[in-house]
Amino acid sequence: MVRAATPEDKFSFGLWTVAWAGKDQFGDATRADLAPWEYLAPLKEAGAWGVTFHDDDVVPFGAGDSEREEILARFKQTADEVGLVIEMVTTNTFSHPVFKDGGFSANDRAVRRFGLRKVLRNVDLAAELGASTFVMWGGREGTEYDGSKDLHSALERYAEGLDTVAAYIKEKGYDLRIALEPKPNEPRGDIFLPTIGHALGLIAQLENGDIVGLNPETGHEQMAGLNYTHGLAQALWAGKLFHIDLNGQRSIKYDQDLVFGHGDLFSAFFTVDLLENGFPNGGPTYTGPRHFDYKPSRTEGFDGVWASAKANIDTYLMLAEKAKAYREDPRTQAAFEAAGVFEAAQPTLAAGESIADLLADRSAFEDFDADAAGARETNYVALNQLALEHLIG
Amino acid sequence: MVRAATPEDKFSFGLWTVAWAGKDQFGDATRADLAPWEYLAPLKEAGAWGVTFHDDDVVPFGAGDSEREEILARFKQTADEVGLVIEMVTTNTFSHPVFKDGGFSANDRAVRRFGLRKVLRNVDLAAELGASTFVMWGGREGTEYDGSKDLHSALERYAEGLDTVAAYIKEKGYDLRIALEPKPNEPRGDIFLPTIGHALGLIAQLENGDIVGLNPETGHEQMAGLNYTHGLAQALWAGKLFHIDLNGQRSIKYDQDLVFGHGDLFSAFFTVDLLENGFPNGGPTYTGPRHFDYKPSRTEGFDGVWASAKANIDTYLMLAEKAKAYREDPRTQAAFEAAGVFEAAQPTLAAGESIADLLADRSAFEDFDADAAGARETNYVALNQLALEHLIG
Amino acid sequence: MVRAATPEDKFSFGLWTVAWAGKDQFGDATRADLAPWEYLAPLKEAGAWGVTFHDDDVVPFGAGDSEREEILARFKQTADEVGLVIEMVTTNTFSHPVFKDGGFSANDRAVRRFGLRKVLRNVDLAAELGASTFVMWGGREGTEYDGSKDLHSALERYAEGLDTVAAYIKEKGYDLRIALEPKPNEPRGDIFLPTIGHALGLIAQLENGDIVGLNPETGHEQMAGLNYTHGLAQALWAGKLFHIDLNGQRSIKYDQDLVFGHGDLFSAFFTVDLLENGFPNGGPTYTGPRHFDYKPSRTEGFDGVWASAKANIDTYLMLAEKAKAYREDPRTQAAFEAAGVFEAAQPTLAAGESIADLLADRSAFEDFDADAAGARETNYVALNQLALEHLIG
Amino acid sequence: MVRAATPEDKFSFGLWTVAWAGKDQFGDATRADLAPWEYLAPLKEAGAWGVTFHDDDVVPFGAGDSEREEILARFKQTADEVGLVIEMVTTNTFSHPVFKDGGFSANDRAVRRFGLRKVLRNVDLAAELGASTFVMWGGREGTEYDGSKDLHSALERYAEGLDTVAAYIKEKGYDLRIALEPKPNEPRGDIFLPTIGHALGLIAQLENGDIVGLNPETGHEQMAGLNYTHGLAQALWAGKLFHIDLNGQRSIKYDQDLVFGHGDLFSAFFTVDLLENGFPNGGPTYTGPRHFDYKPSRTEGFDGVWASAKANIDTYLMLAEKAKAYREDPRTQAAFEAAGVFEAAQPTLAAGESIADLLADRSAFEDFDADAAGARETNYVALNQLALEHLIG
Repeated sequence: MVRAATPEDKFSFGLWTVAWAGKDQFGDATRADLAPWEYLAPLKEAGAWGVTFHDDDVVPFGAGDSEREEILARFKQTADEVGLVIEMVTTNTFSHPVFKDGGFSANDRAVRRFGLRKVLRNVDLAAELGASTFVMWGGREGTEYDGSKDLHSALERYAEGLDTVAAYIKEKGYDLRIALEPKPNEPRGDIFLPTIGHALGLIAQLENGDIVGLNPETGHEQMAGLNYTHGLAQALWAGKLFHIDLNGQRSIKYDQDLVFGHGDLFSAFFTVDLLENGFPNGGPTYTGPRHFDYKPSRTEGFDGVWASAKANIDTYLMLAEKAKAYREDPRTQAAFEAAGVFEAAQPTLAAGESIADLLADRSAFEDFDADAAGARETNYVALNQLALEHLIG
Repeated sequence: MVRAATPEDKFSFGLWTVAWAGKDQFGDATRADLAPWEYLAPLKEAGAWGVTFHDDDVVPFGAGDSEREEILARFKQTADEVGLVIEMVTTNTFSHPVFKDGGFSANDRAVRRFGLRKVLRNVDLAAELGASTFVMWGGREGTEYDGSKDLHSALERYAEGLDTVAAYIKEKGYDLRIALEPKPNEPRGDIFLPTIGHALGLIAQLENGDIVGLNPETGHEQMAGLNYTHGLAQALWAGKLFHIDLNGQRSIKYDQDLVFGHGDLFSAFFTVDLLENGFPNGGPTYTGPRHFDYKPSRTEGFDGVWASAKANIDTYLMLAEKAKAYREDPRTQAAFEAAGVFEAAQPTLAAGESIADLLADRSAFEDFDADAAGARETNYVALNQLALEHLIG
Repeated sequence: MVRAATPEDKFSFGLWTVAWAGKDQFGDATRADLAPWEYLAPLKEAGAWGVTFHDDDVVPFGAGDSEREEILARFKQTADEVGLVIEMVTTNTFSHPVFKDGGFSANDRAVRRFGLRKVLRNVDLAAELGASTFVMWGGREGTEYDGSKDLHSALERYAEGLDTVAAYIKEKGYDLRIALEPKPNEPRGDIFLPTIGHALGLIAQLENGDIVGLNPETGHEQMAGLNYTHGLAQALWAGKLFHIDLNGQRSIKYDQDLVFGHGDLFSAFFTVDLLENGFPNGGPTYTGPRHFDYKPSRTEGFDGVWASAKANIDTYLMLAEKAKAYREDPRTQAAFEAAGVFEAAQPTLAAGESIADLLADRSAFEDFDADAAGARETNYVALNQLALEHLIG
Repeated sequence: MVRAATPEDKFSFGLWTVAWAGKDQFGDATRADLAPWEYLAPLKEAGAWGVTFHDDDVVPFGAGDSEREEILARFKQTADEVGLVIEMVTTNTFSHPVFKDGGFSANDRAVRRFGLRKVLRNVDLAAELGASTFVMWGGREGTEYDGSKDLHSALERYAEGLDTVAAYIKEKGYDLRIALEPKPNEPRGDIFLPTIGHALGLIAQLENGDIVGLNPETGHEQMAGLNYTHGLAQALWAGKLFHIDLNGQRSIKYDQDLVFGHGDLFSAFFTVDLLENGFPNGGPTYTGPRHFDYKPSRTEGFDGVWASAKANIDTYLMLAEKAKAYREDPRTQAAFEAAGVFEAAQPTLAAGESIADLLADRSAFEDFDADAAGARETNYVALNQLALEHLIG
């Protein structure tokens, strides 16, 4: 029913998604662990163009150099043979006990140095493999107890770490950008950089912030009850949407990592509408990979793993088709016009108008009929219903 | 039991707090409306040093110039007589129907111009009254339906409006700073600038962002499940904590505006600890008003109104005393030391250490015993229990 | 595109939905108040078969008997003329200050007696108007402060009130059933009977619980992060789904009362699937009105009011059509079969099998291959994707 | 500072609490696994009177009969030597892959039979060890996808399983009661019996519901944003509070299992107030164990494990002392009186008063001054502040 994915769609998956064996906080693995390269052909088959990974997804923590190189070579070779691009690499600074209190913001300086080294090592790898993005999710950077950290020092150290990595990328001349992944909580009680906004705020304080942006995940924002599409919009507006993690989440609870669209479907529609069609009035667009960071449910076997991988892509493609039709529908354009969506592109002050001019404009205030303006019909609900009809009609 | 408040404590209240008559989404007012100046003497009596207000709290929307001046003069005169400082002024751009789709980010350009004029008028007033902070809560800037706004244009317009106000303040040479108040939702489905982070991110894009900072409210951050003290810390770190709104909230639900401490009490302890004692390793501190933005419950009569106003102050003072004892306790300092709280002040790279130096340091990675480091005892829970014992002991 | 509603669809609206003028916690009304009967013809036009109301929606609080009768007569006459059934009547025990601490569970006994009288008066009215359901939403029955109530007494009083109303209905021989409407919070900090479950638990303790059931609202359950369809299922299982309130809610936040489907759309699909198609293995079904309890957004004028009313119906009808196709699709039935959905109908113990028999069955435990059983493929994600394809395909 | 715990305090711990090695969804264990009996002496040392366990906490899943008996004998012997009562036993039907879709409500009938057998085996064990309560947490009974279950059949099967276990207990004449533990989500997307209320509703439908009650956990209710103390009150009112799980949770997020009091401290105060002092107007009381179900944070070593265990007890004892003083304070009693807390004990209808009598009482309605009653001062906030002053004063 839905068209097949093409490389131009740039669908990409974290290796850790399909390779998740189902071990969770309350239960053991329900699926076997395959060798890392064994996941690649089926991923390609499901429609993927790219694959991404954490170092520890492929190479065991603590492996020696030669073992590491051998494994990575085989992984890279298989990816090449299969035809998968390694578009992003990231570092696991959250699983091993050494990172129990964080990597870059840990109180223990030796841990921070170790974390930084582990990251820098993977920056080299990312560059070597031709990745364009280096994602950093600081899942253990945070606290359960406010007294356990000097919060200012923690932010200082976090920023120091990020600036050091960015400086290294620049020093080496790598064609690589850092993308921070915010999350409000889990596995820590409160994670630093809990939302897109907090990450944007931190980036603004960095020395090398020009190559640091965001990798926002659908479910992570929704775990704070926030609107993911609004978050993407602010990241785009700030020129910082470097990468995305698409998945599904149902309300505020633990991190579900469902298939994209299997969470808040209506919101997913507007996310795809933004990614595919941009803002109605133009402006920055996202052209990077459509990267999925989900987990095949623990109930599934390997049939379910591959069906779920493909479900992400199919859902995205269906939503893209519908979003296109929605935008092109003359009724949508007319509703945008009537609702003032295009009018929002007009600056509030006219070209060349000074504040003094505005203050002198009696029509703007003294003679303005606020009651009449307050009675203006928006027809926002009808517009939303039009979107819904395109979505399910 | 607790000491009396002094002007040096800088306790301040929004006029709209004690003046809230109890009208809510589902019910009528349970208390009478007094004249604005009638609230001032009892506020002073409760321990307040300052008072703040929205224009419409004092002067009816649409009042003529002479009526407005007369009312404001009487209000100012009473404040002076009573001995209350007007430390902050803000503008209501959310109650009148004209603002049903926002003030600065409304699709309707005429509404935006009207909103801007309404705000600029109050900037003059704030300066005239000697206020040092101009708070802006954009409660209607947002959406229920993602299609109803060009999100990029909305952020552009929001930023344009803020930059215009800031430019005006600079033009006039007013000694005034703007403080944005984030809120995730209510009354809009999704409000722009939903958290401290998003506001910091936006400020970083402003031309006149140097005089724009934050007025974070306890409950607003907690409505997104976020840690208020962490948020204050990030705002302080960014040099942007210009004002605060203290109150109480119980979990993620509608905006409760309870008395400070009547929500998450343990979190309130750490908030006060930060405000009073600063970060353990030093750094920026907050020296502004301790401003309460709460609502006396709808069940209360005027006795309850004044008791609840005083409860905010008493709770703050009790927490301040306990936080001081907690910090000064040698056991706390020893636990900080053992937990590495002070160690966090040490940069990860040594003074003068280059990235190359770090990469050459085998003790940082190749020879580092990650398992041993992962086994380091933090005793964070015991430290938290020590805080709890100071809080309730 | 979607077929027109018929009386057999039993679409019904609370009068307070379209009559909501837009006054909220932070703002004034944006629409005019019409006379109650003026809403009826357009409701019919939008596709409604029924209308419901609180006493105070139609007759002002405190109106004298003759005024009341006159207004009600005119309302009833208009409904008859227009062709709208008054299928449900309810009582407002939450807006007037007298109910600020609850109606049936208020500490003040005189308030409880007044509340009971107000309710009994409307029971007579409901019977007189031919309503079959009497909804009770105890929006003010609750607390902000745990110390403010003896929680046991509060439940005793709540139960006493409900039992009294039910006894009265029986005494009078009215063909009327009570339907409780749970809500977790707002306007009280914690409302008694916060969820479907708590109401079921209370009903089980009533003397006259046989005529007391539930009126669950989509958004109210979702405000506690709960699955509405699961809640409906448990109410049906207990024989207690007497009435429903359909609307939309986006995650855990204030009560949004959006159009049905404009919240969690995928969940709405499964709600309609249950209401229209019943459980896959048979069992109790819901045959009552499809009642909408939503609010036209405050941004809308009257065009938007009527478009939004119709949007509820259109969405329901579209979902019903899709749910039917989903259920009838042989792939769905095959997936149900493979996933064991039908197998769930088989009791765990065979007919006539005793516990001793089970204990003696070595195949059930001693010889059971748990690992093999744990590896059984469920294909739940693929089944969900099939539902999604029916929903948006 | 706080007194030492005594056996009369009945403090009890799940073995899985202190034995949790720190493995979570995103990370490996940070602590070693000890033999089950090695945890007992330090638990006793920390102040425990009792210990509880899941079968799999002590005996590896799938162990043969002789291995099982040997291990259990050693565990029991050590408990006896140390002086710990085994007051509750429970069954793990959530960790092994066989239970990936539930135990009692799994679609797969063979899994249900296996689950039932596993539970029955532990019922025997519980009786043999002298436990008085048999807790059942159905953590895997639920769904991620509404289509994956016939929800009616699932409830039927769940009820069948519970009724079978209860019937077995009766058949054998064991002095044992079943206590259901509700949880809204995690590890399933939506767990059946998500709250105290839903469990009460289900129990009311059981044939053998007389020996089935509840084991409510603080954090589980708070994960749905619900008031734990309200939930306990409804369980007590229904005669169903058989056991409790005390811990700490900070707002709506993943299951944190913090130390009791390290979450919502003010709520913990009122929980202890209810458990220790009962309802102000009398009624049912809880006399069972004070059982803690928490996790020592993953940052902790074994020092932290034991300090955190003791922190639960110390916090409870401190809160108990403060709650006693709060209740005995004449100001509290006066505030209760003024606020009508005692008045709530008076039935709404007088002794012997019929509905007809109520209807004839003009003072209850026709002559009632609703405005005056609505103006009654409650002073609820002042009462809450009094509680706060006892808590932290």
